[in-house]
Amino acid sequence: MTDDVCHKKEIMAVHDAMDVLNGKWKISIISSICYYNKRRFSDILNDVNGISNKMLSKELKELEVNKLIVRTVLDTQPVTVHYNLTEYGLTLKGIINNLADWGKKHRKMITGK
Amino acid sequence: MTDDVCHKKEIMAVHDAMDVLNGKWKISIISSICYYNKRRFSDILNDVNGISNKMLSKELKELEVNKLIVRTVLDTQPVTVHYNLTEYGLTLKGIINNLADWGKKHRKMITGK
Repeated sequence: MTDDVCHKKEIMAVHDAMDVLNGKWKISIISSICYYNKRRFSDILNDVNGISNKMLSKELKELEVNKLIVRTVLDTQPVTVHYNLTEYGLTLKGIINNLADWGKKHRKMITGK
Repeated sequence: MTDDVCHKKEIMAVHDAMDVLNGKWKISIISSICYYNKRRFSDILNDVNGISNKMLSKELKELEVNKLIVRTVLDTQPVTVHYNLTEYGLTLKGIINNLADWGKKHRKMITGK
């Protein structure tokens, strides 16, 4: 396989990953559920700055369709709904941790502290 | 630091990283330049499926402002312009490689081959 073909495959693979994780919010939503293991809708809304109720519902549905998260409804009064990562969703943990490390360094670089 | 405060910091750090890398295209553009070390505008346009000329110009400018890439103009006939990652941009290589690995597994999971 030539270098060029190899590079094209790598770039396409990154593109495939971003197709699933696209949009401004998905990675932040996954990180919220990832760090807490299990998270309610209202908690995620609070964790992910600036996201609207409607947008969070849409993004959570897409993540469910892509089998990255699972929604559990508990028969409590009132009903409780929480989300957690599937086995497959947990394979993103490495990427999430890398992004967090990079984000911390980026903030230091920008703010100088 | 309580668990909760620690989680909030991690989630904010992921959010910070995604603020810089946001949008559908930036990570794919960075991966194109990253794998080839140095890339011309027309090459990137070719590598990143579906991106328009106008969108690529805008995204490249934002990446330059964030000091992740640098633009070099060569005095050839016609003039050649190429992009490469800065030292700072190269700190994203780990994340790019992780995304490529994840993307390959995702494609296998979806297509079964």
